[in-house]
Amino acid sequence: MNRLYLSVALNSTGSAPRSWAAPGTRWNRFSDWRHYLRSAQLAHEGVFDIVFVSDHPALQRDNTSRPIHSFDPTVLFSAVAAAVPDIGFLLTASSSYNSPYNLARRLATLDHISGGRVIWNVVSSFNPDIAANFGAAPLPSRAERYRRADEFVQVVRDLWLSWDTPSDDPPAGDLWDATTARRIDHHGEFFDVTGPLNVPIGPQGHPVISQAGASEAGVDLAAKHADIVYASLLHKQSAFDYQARLRERALAHGRDPGDLRLLPGLTVILGETREEAYRKHEALHGHRGEDGLIADFLHRNWAVDLGDRIDPDKPLDPALFAHTEDQQRPVGFVRSFAELAAAEEITPRQLVRRVEGGHRLAVGTPREVADTILDWWSSGAVAGFNIHIPVLPDGIAEFNRHVIPLLQESGAFPAAYDGSTLRERLKLPDPRNR
Amino acid sequence: MNRLYLSVALNSTGSAPRSWAAPGTRWNRFSDWRHYLRSAQLAHEGVFDIVFVSDHPALQRDNTSRPIHSFDPTVLFSAVAAAVPDIGFLLTASSSYNSPYNLARRLATLDHISGGRVIWNVVSSFNPDIAANFGAAPLPSRAERYRRADEFVQVVRDLWLSWDTPSDDPPAGDLWDATTARRIDHHGEFFDVTGPLNVPIGPQGHPVISQAGASEAGVDLAAKHADIVYASLLHKQSAFDYQARLRERALAHGRDPGDLRLLPGLTVILGETREEAYRKHEALHGHRGEDGLIADFLHRNWAVDLGDRIDPDKPLDPALFAHTEDQQRPVGFVRSFAELAAAEEITPRQLVRRVEGGHRLAVGTPREVADTILDWWSSGAVAGFNIHIPVLPDGIAEFNRHVIPLLQESGAFPAAYDGSTLRERLKLPDPRNR
Repeated sequence: MNRLYLSVALNSTGSAPRSWAAPGTRWNRFSDWRHYLRSAQLAHEGVFDIVFVSDHPALQRDNTSRPIHSFDPTVLFSAVAAAVPDIGFLLTASSSYNSPYNLARRLATLDHISGGRVIWNVVSSFNPDIAANFGAAPLPSRAERYRRADEFVQVVRDLWLSWDTPSDDPPAGDLWDATTARRIDHHGEFFDVTGPLNVPIGPQGHPVISQAGASEAGVDLAAKHADIVYASLLHKQSAFDYQARLRERALAHGRDPGDLRLLPGLTVILGETREEAYRKHEALHGHRGEDGLIADFLHRNWAVDLGDRIDPDKPLDPALFAHTEDQQRPVGFVRSFAELAAAEEITPRQLVRRVEGGHRLAVGTPREVADTILDWWSSGAVAGFNIHIPVLPDGIAEFNRHVIPLLQESGAFPAAYDGSTLRERLKLPDPRNR
Repeated sequence: MNRLYLSVALNSTGSAPRSWAAPGTRWNRFSDWRHYLRSAQLAHEGVFDIVFVSDHPALQRDNTSRPIHSFDPTVLFSAVAAAVPDIGFLLTASSSYNSPYNLARRLATLDHISGGRVIWNVVSSFNPDIAANFGAAPLPSRAERYRRADEFVQVVRDLWLSWDTPSDDPPAGDLWDATTARRIDHHGEFFDVTGPLNVPIGPQGHPVISQAGASEAGVDLAAKHADIVYASLLHKQSAFDYQARLRERALAHGRDPGDLRLLPGLTVILGETREEAYRKHEALHGHRGEDGLIADFLHRNWAVDLGDRIDPDKPLDPALFAHTEDQQRPVGFVRSFAELAAAEEITPRQLVRRVEGGHRLAVGTPREVADTILDWWSSGAVAGFNIHIPVLPDGIAEFNRHVIPLLQESGAFPAAYDGSTLRERLKLPDPRNR
């Protein structure tokens, strides 16, 4: 079995909607690149494998939450990667609102600068606000976006391998040997790209690819192209089931399913006692007590209210968890609720302590949080987790101080960085050998 | 009069086609980002105002020259800007092969990271090899590319001013005050962009804009939008004439012509004596003696040969300098030849010592080079120069050691950095006051 892998999300001021207003923080740090630098430095102190940013090329003006997705990830993480060694950098970028040549080039540039530490998280974008920043056409259907994503990733991978790494020995005669840089001559449904890319192959062959698909098309895309798969999985059996879906599809695409690393999201709220962690959880939402949490949760997710209509201590109506494959919203978060409800008759009171920001929540003592992580990992349900920290950057230091040592003591997590590129660290095959 | 401004080009291994093979250098340093970092550090030691990269999103496989335009400029300069203070970063990016939202966002991100030191050099791209990496459509006509560039720049500028800098004081009630972030609702011939941009206004309002137009459409674009204008100007009178064209157009667009900074290219080859500089010039092209230089120059520029057909000591036939406004190649370089030939009856022997890489050449002692720079600047022909260094990075150290002190002694060039943003240093108006 591979060791435990951990990534940590560096989005905005933290995963908690009111993280911007947390005591002792600067509310506007989301627009200061040093906030992300400091967060990455803390993640490096914790020997995290990866720092992660999601992305959304539009301003989200939900005034119940923090401003999220501001700086361009490729530009932001280039400055951070130049200053922070070892750690991997996961950047989210849309296959619907980029051109494959430009994006392949930017990611390859960052892969050189970082010495082979880049992961591209492919998203197809689902929000009409994004579409409105890129032309008059409405958001394409999910099916079209995923066909485009598949072709986009294929073009990017071909471009990434189109110019061999220049040898350290100078060319003997002419500068160019035509065989070292090859046109790709791609002509498909969405793209025509001649190539070659003007960035040569970098230290890890090419960036690692990740995907977070939960719909049928998403899982297929992940199984075909991804090395790392992110997901919202609220129940351990759901993780096994999801892995089985992924593996089956990977085999159908001729891949070794052992080459995929599943890293579902895990929001962590720590306290010296579970009660202290619960109070912190409530305070992060601006509440005193559990009822406020429950009321907010029901209202936000289903627009239903406590009181007459919902009893916080009776199992939720399964009808609340319905979803369709053709909905425009992401399928993953809703599907994970449905699976949790199918596995357990869960009450609103239980649910708010199990889910946070759409991801599984671990709220409790460092020992309880570490045991949750080690339980899922040692049973083979996951390769690791993508940790969501409620308030950045200090929450990373707290996780480092209290949880990382327990994971290291167990032997599951290393005390120092191993491998020189991210691909080596993740024990992934070299794409040059395909 | 403003002080002298200097930028330096950091393209590839240097401006000399055989710079990759210069003794004592690593030929493949063009694909090592630390080469650009080292070059920028040297430029910073020389108190240069700006480091400059041109760009071309396609691999150029001319085996008589060095590989140029590899790394993506926004990603490359983000890593460099995080490590090198004070100096400005000029990045070239195409208005034909980007989307305005993504490019505005990347440049705004870098403007934040650098603390207000970014210049966007707008190009419309002229090469069919580029077009072939971005779809099946051929390169648009010059007229269409410039109409698109004008609209593109307008959209980018509007996006850059669409979200006010978050105040250091936390919001009193709701997180968002709707008046701080404004949709731009642009609907034009080429673009539909709703906005607002998801990056707030940065330390210098927005990035400085530069342009290098020489065609009628190019000069008009520069006069309408640019703060800095790059150009190929081989003769001082051409610089005055070019400034007059720019100023006239700037007035027509309602701008103060005094807000434009003209920085033509200047290739510098230094020697302790002029003869030594001449030998160095020849050696950079792989020659011993002047005839090799002349033969190469004629062949490269006009595909004509020395010997029977051309006498190196007789004025060149003016017919060689013909150009048309509708040609696909850039107008600037050819036009500057024509103006030089109109002003002086120039022989091939003289021409090779006046032009290098399409730009004016200053080949001689440090005193001669400094005098050329100071002569053009003090006469008001230019605001400064964009220096092209034949072999990077060491050529910058040589320029720093021998030429910079002469410029500083004259009082034209500062001994240390002034102003906290690039816009302040260049004494340009704040776009927030428009």
